[in-house]
Amino acid sequence: MAALVQRYLDGILAEHAPVTDGDLASYIPELSRVDPAGFGLSLSSSDGYVYESGDAGVQFTMQSISKPFTYALALDQLGLADVDARIGVEPSGEGFNKISVDQVTNVPKNPMINAGAIVACSLIPGKTVDDRFELVREFYSACAGSRLDFDEDVYRSERASGSRNRGIAYLLDSFGALGSDPDDALDVYTRQCSLKVTSTDLARMAATLARGGLNPLSGRQVTDAMVVRRTLSVMVTCGMYDAAGEWVSSVGMPAKSGVGGGIIAVLPGQLGIGVYSPRIDVKGNSVRGMLVCRSLSQQLGLHFLTVSSDAHAAIRGVYNPRFGVRVYEVHGDLLFAGAEQVTRTVTRDCAELDTAILDVSRLHAISEPARALLAGLADGLQSLGKRSLLVDPGGAVISDPSAYEGLVFPTVEEALAATQAWTG
Amino acid sequence: MAALVQRYLDGILAEHAPVTDGDLASYIPELSRVDPAGFGLSLSSSDGYVYESGDAGVQFTMQSISKPFTYALALDQLGLADVDARIGVEPSGEGFNKISVDQVTNVPKNPMINAGAIVACSLIPGKTVDDRFELVREFYSACAGSRLDFDEDVYRSERASGSRNRGIAYLLDSFGALGSDPDDALDVYTRQCSLKVTSTDLARMAATLARGGLNPLSGRQVTDAMVVRRTLSVMVTCGMYDAAGEWVSSVGMPAKSGVGGGIIAVLPGQLGIGVYSPRIDVKGNSVRGMLVCRSLSQQLGLHFLTVSSDAHAAIRGVYNPRFGVRVYEVHGDLLFAGAEQVTRTVTRDCAELDTAILDVSRLHAISEPARALLAGLADGLQSLGKRSLLVDPGGAVISDPSAYEGLVFPTVEEALAATQAWTG
Amino acid sequence: MAALVQRYLDGILAEHAPVTDGDLASYIPELSRVDPAGFGLSLSSSDGYVYESGDAGVQFTMQSISKPFTYALALDQLGLADVDARIGVEPSGEGFNKISVDQVTNVPKNPMINAGAIVACSLIPGKTVDDRFELVREFYSACAGSRLDFDEDVYRSERASGSRNRGIAYLLDSFGALGSDPDDALDVYTRQCSLKVTSTDLARMAATLARGGLNPLSGRQVTDAMVVRRTLSVMVTCGMYDAAGEWVSSVGMPAKSGVGGGIIAVLPGQLGIGVYSPRIDVKGNSVRGMLVCRSLSQQLGLHFLTVSSDAHAAIRGVYNPRFGVRVYEVHGDLLFAGAEQVTRTVTRDCAELDTAILDVSRLHAISEPARALLAGLADGLQSLGKRSLLVDPGGAVISDPSAYEGLVFPTVEEALAATQAWTG
Amino acid sequence: MAALVQRYLDGILAEHAPVTDGDLASYIPELSRVDPAGFGLSLSSSDGYVYESGDAGVQFTMQSISKPFTYALALDQLGLADVDARIGVEPSGEGFNKISVDQVTNVPKNPMINAGAIVACSLIPGKTVDDRFELVREFYSACAGSRLDFDEDVYRSERASGSRNRGIAYLLDSFGALGSDPDDALDVYTRQCSLKVTSTDLARMAATLARGGLNPLSGRQVTDAMVVRRTLSVMVTCGMYDAAGEWVSSVGMPAKSGVGGGIIAVLPGQLGIGVYSPRIDVKGNSVRGMLVCRSLSQQLGLHFLTVSSDAHAAIRGVYNPRFGVRVYEVHGDLLFAGAEQVTRTVTRDCAELDTAILDVSRLHAISEPARALLAGLADGLQSLGKRSLLVDPGGAVISDPSAYEGLVFPTVEEALAATQAWTG
Repeated sequence: MAALVQRYLDGILAEHAPVTDGDLASYIPELSRVDPAGFGLSLSSSDGYVYESGDAGVQFTMQSISKPFTYALALDQLGLADVDARIGVEPSGEGFNKISVDQVTNVPKNPMINAGAIVACSLIPGKTVDDRFELVREFYSACAGSRLDFDEDVYRSERASGSRNRGIAYLLDSFGALGSDPDDALDVYTRQCSLKVTSTDLARMAATLARGGLNPLSGRQVTDAMVVRRTLSVMVTCGMYDAAGEWVSSVGMPAKSGVGGGIIAVLPGQLGIGVYSPRIDVKGNSVRGMLVCRSLSQQLGLHFLTVSSDAHAAIRGVYNPRFGVRVYEVHGDLLFAGAEQVTRTVTRDCAELDTAILDVSRLHAISEPARALLAGLADGLQSLGKRSLLVDPGGAVISDPSAYEGLVFPTVEEALAATQAWTG
Repeated sequence: MAALVQRYLDGILAEHAPVTDGDLASYIPELSRVDPAGFGLSLSSSDGYVYESGDAGVQFTMQSISKPFTYALALDQLGLADVDARIGVEPSGEGFNKISVDQVTNVPKNPMINAGAIVACSLIPGKTVDDRFELVREFYSACAGSRLDFDEDVYRSERASGSRNRGIAYLLDSFGALGSDPDDALDVYTRQCSLKVTSTDLARMAATLARGGLNPLSGRQVTDAMVVRRTLSVMVTCGMYDAAGEWVSSVGMPAKSGVGGGIIAVLPGQLGIGVYSPRIDVKGNSVRGMLVCRSLSQQLGLHFLTVSSDAHAAIRGVYNPRFGVRVYEVHGDLLFAGAEQVTRTVTRDCAELDTAILDVSRLHAISEPARALLAGLADGLQSLGKRSLLVDPGGAVISDPSAYEGLVFPTVEEALAATQAWTG
Repeated sequence: MAALVQRYLDGILAEHAPVTDGDLASYIPELSRVDPAGFGLSLSSSDGYVYESGDAGVQFTMQSISKPFTYALALDQLGLADVDARIGVEPSGEGFNKISVDQVTNVPKNPMINAGAIVACSLIPGKTVDDRFELVREFYSACAGSRLDFDEDVYRSERASGSRNRGIAYLLDSFGALGSDPDDALDVYTRQCSLKVTSTDLARMAATLARGGLNPLSGRQVTDAMVVRRTLSVMVTCGMYDAAGEWVSSVGMPAKSGVGGGIIAVLPGQLGIGVYSPRIDVKGNSVRGMLVCRSLSQQLGLHFLTVSSDAHAAIRGVYNPRFGVRVYEVHGDLLFAGAEQVTRTVTRDCAELDTAILDVSRLHAISEPARALLAGLADGLQSLGKRSLLVDPGGAVISDPSAYEGLVFPTVEEALAATQAWTG
Repeated sequence: MAALVQRYLDGILAEHAPVTDGDLASYIPELSRVDPAGFGLSLSSSDGYVYESGDAGVQFTMQSISKPFTYALALDQLGLADVDARIGVEPSGEGFNKISVDQVTNVPKNPMINAGAIVACSLIPGKTVDDRFELVREFYSACAGSRLDFDEDVYRSERASGSRNRGIAYLLDSFGALGSDPDDALDVYTRQCSLKVTSTDLARMAATLARGGLNPLSGRQVTDAMVVRRTLSVMVTCGMYDAAGEWVSSVGMPAKSGVGGGIIAVLPGQLGIGVYSPRIDVKGNSVRGMLVCRSLSQQLGLHFLTVSSDAHAAIRGVYNPRFGVRVYEVHGDLLFAGAEQVTRTVTRDCAELDTAILDVSRLHAISEPARALLAGLADGLQSLGKRSLLVDPGGAVISDPSAYEGLVFPTVEEALAATQAWTG
């Protein structure tokens, strides 16, 4: 029963509901006025199904949870090299309100601290602040699958009270670290912090990251897998402030928290998680949000170094439709390790075969190294005097079948028919 | 062709062969006498198949590559709590020859620096240094799948020249940080550094970690998955000295290097890698070894945050052998996300079914949360007036089938026969 | 010949004149337009005589040399306790453009870094920025003995380009570290940096500090000795950026430099020094200015730990105007150690005396503990049946002579006459 | 009355006697067995007179108070350049049991931390450890004015328990930082820590430093003034562990403490102080010892930046024995500032004189720059057609009077006779 998963989540929420440690953020009145008891949890599967528990519909401002997304957008727009020249990727070992700028290069240590986030904002292209913020909001909304609301009151209040961030922005400007005017960069940053989400929005945004940039609901590839991998890498080492080792050891999910009470966590390839509970600890992390992440990881075995599907899963089925002919059904997301296993299996079998048919019609995705391996396998068999046919209706392995006349087919049946014709 | 993978590896080796940066370790004569041109690469698949390229058969001493393994052994023998009280998990941000002991607790920052490694050695049980070292050597050998040789000359030389490590051991003793006499702990440490491996041994040891502690060749579960997960977590954040963020971002494999020229790298669930090239940089990392790791990650897409098989892969096949009866073939390593998908799929389908048969006979492994979900699914369907049968010859989901009389079967045929009897 | 001292200074200037290391400050155009060859040295004796060598009449902006003076003014206006609660006194170990705010208390490490200087500015009382700056300017001018000019161009240029200081001011404001509006504090700071001095002005200001706050020319006690002692203490440990130990060891004068090319140095009780040479090193110190300070210290033996006048100097002369009567002439600045010597000498002699006359008419100054000792000495002799008279025309020891009828006299002659009357 | 000073000291002791904060050092049994109530204070004037209060006769081991003296001995034996290459002079900002070795040069930060002290021990010349320790003991004893006892029990106990220092010694050896075998250096260090002193010994040792290396009792110049100045400089910035700024600001005496409960403090040119109270704080400083130092500084005005005798004191008296002839009596310790004043005064007066007689027979000491100034003055007057005679019986200014035939005299009378001869 799907209700079982629901019960797990409800149970974890109930377990931590009595905890009242921590305090509402108090630096602006808007954050101190929310209901401190609010507690929501949402979990999205990698195909976009969402479980909700507690106050999963309550809106709150993203605050620092915006940081990985604007970093991703900057990577998306400028590329790795340009962003790397401006923002580091090392843990800062310092609290969230420290500057953490490299003493030699004056580059912020990473994009998860305010200094790095303000630099990221300064890199987002656009003629005006409005243009640039609209790009940010559209990117976030594409990750969430719906347009995010903006909290005008929080924005105004943070803009008025933001001596700390203004100080950081001016210092960055003095280092030549910004890509734009300091006030403009700060304005984009303050606005993105004031975008509103629910824990379900966060779970959906996390699922988009879990899927390598593909929003599983809308089917839109919001950004590419390389950008997401880099963003998740930085969340691993720098996401939870000054205890990277402890978080990786005990939770093992790239994550980011915000003083609004939200936490986003990603289990790559598998799940997206959003939690909301507005009482925060002195480091600015939601107290119950962190407890929930720990419980989820421990009780549900969510840790990105937990060994998942072993490479054998790449071959879904093998059958011999005729003597000397063997069909290999390859499926799922094919990476190097899976393609290696396919290649090795077929190569090992080929002594007893005339014809190998590689059916890749069920492939969900394939990495470039895996593609090269499978293409090479076909060529290799050919050179050994074996016939090697590919069932590749979507062009996953061979994008231009015209160069492989008679070797690539849309269905197994057509491939088999072709082999029959030969052996007649 | 498996030869394709071979060619990839040979190509990466050839690409970096001309690099002559770095110097042989010179602090003991034995290390400075090796052939600086030695260059070997080995890659083990998760099922234990090993590719070798270059000098994959050349032996060298493990040096610091021993650290994660003795840490794993300490975790295995004492449990997480006891080890955590003695050795931290945070990056030290300092070079390999610094003490890096927490200023308040006097606990070494992590087990990948010398201080932490010496503490780990002090925790290994045994009456004598010989007993304790034998336990270490047997553990390493079980990971590698063959008994590792010991380099008596290197050991004697390092023991004679080890003022630095002797200094660290005495300081740790003065902090009360050791579990044994400082000279004994240091002796175990010096001996383990003198164990000899080839790049292929390293690849096999890495594959054992990649498989959660199961040596894929011998089939022996050397230690449990929790110990391995913790060990890999620490390798992620502390393995490559003072650039955790850069390594995670650009390589993305838990790794450890040694001044003997070796590097071990693990792609969890997928691959184990060993590299050997004895010219090291000022931080003590093999220059070409690091280049090879980068190339492998970039060219072959080996990065642990690369999205791998999506959760759909959990259901290998679905078919209706009879009207109202549907068989779900579940396979691979089943974790929470996969079990959630199975549960949701079956629950969604159950309106149109009388009987669901869950065939888990192809499961390779199953996590406890996934097991609970599937068991709960069976109960839940029952409560809805649906029949739910389990094909579980290995007891993957139901370890005691006697409690589930008539619901658990060794084969699909027997399960079908049972449904026929009812409806008959 | 006084010309000898002149020749020493000229020689030191000539020795370093050929050095062209360093660069003009370039962050504002005004500083980069000065003559890089400018080189001036001024030395003021503790009684206000000034030697000048080279470009001692060239005006330049004070920049960071203003910091100790505004710190002194804050101490003068608010007292030690209030200022200590806002500004620390520990070396920062960091360059001049770092924030260096205590991680726990958010208090700047010391008043010689920008953060501490801006806090000091925020503490200066006044209704408006103009009022507060006028107080600063008047204080500096009183130290120098003439009204300092203001460089409007430098002020405007620095105000326009000061992202760094603006950043620091806002950060301090966010920590609650300021006593006023951040923009106002910054404006006072920017103005004080733009006050103009010559090396002779600096030498005079230094002499005022050397004399414990007394301007030796004007005779005005600009601030009290406690304020000066504290200011000099902080200049000792924090004045020359991040090499306190090296500076104390090799130069041994409290000092402060500014990016305008000036350095001020104080030899307490003895000398005030001002140097000007606008080419600065990467830390912002005048290259030739530092060389000159080193040479002065080494060649002229100027180091505050060089043993100076020994305590015997307290007694200028002793004579017996009559049998049984001894006059002790005490002179100079009398501190505890000198008073102890006077007390001990008189006590030792008293067996052979009837009457001791303490002539303190030549005392230049006396500390409170020394005063108490001398007063106690008089009382003590009295109680031993000895006569003890005090020649104290200025009330240095006994401020209210009416309580000591017949024991305190304006001249030795009158005291002698009194003894004669008794014995007579 | 000298009793007044005694009463001051007794009063300060009584004021702090009730304080029972802190604990006896407990790392060896010998230190934990002493009477915790022990409390002694001794103060030596610069001429060697000693006041004692409380348990000034109780012996205790020097421990870290030995550090500045062995540093001074190393400077004395090897010179500044060689020692500077091995031991830094910067504050470490770290507790007393940290290594504090420069990350780049591997040189200990300063000689007041254990690492620096062990390096200093390794530099003391001698064929054997016994030889080297004897040199150390003889040096300390010469400073104290009596041979110091050795505590065999403390030495044995510390040698057996010294893992920390053994660790540091081995690490230093691994860095190549030592001038001798690590075990030998450590043995010298452990022995010197076990030398026994009373607070009076400390006061006498301090007085020897206060007098620039001259033991005022024995009259022996134990080491030269340059060595003492450097040693005091380092005590200023590094003596009291990690609060150099606070100590300089509030106490203002170069000082050093030891875990045996002693503190030594030096007021250059004026006083030497020794305190004993064995209850120490967590940093290893005697709790009441520090309180006593603060009280002494505040109540008695002992702070090395307190302005002492002004330069006018250099001229003790001026008189005209005949028309056209003026005698200037110069006295005390003459440094540059005093000599400048003499030179200027004489130069100013010379228009109205035929002959100036400089009577330097009362000079206690003269620095080289001051000597050069006075010699230059004589030459200068000569060249102006004025007669300038020197009364210099001790050769303070003119060491070889044969070159100044008729210009240098042993007494004023003889000088006057000579002028009479001319004018006669």
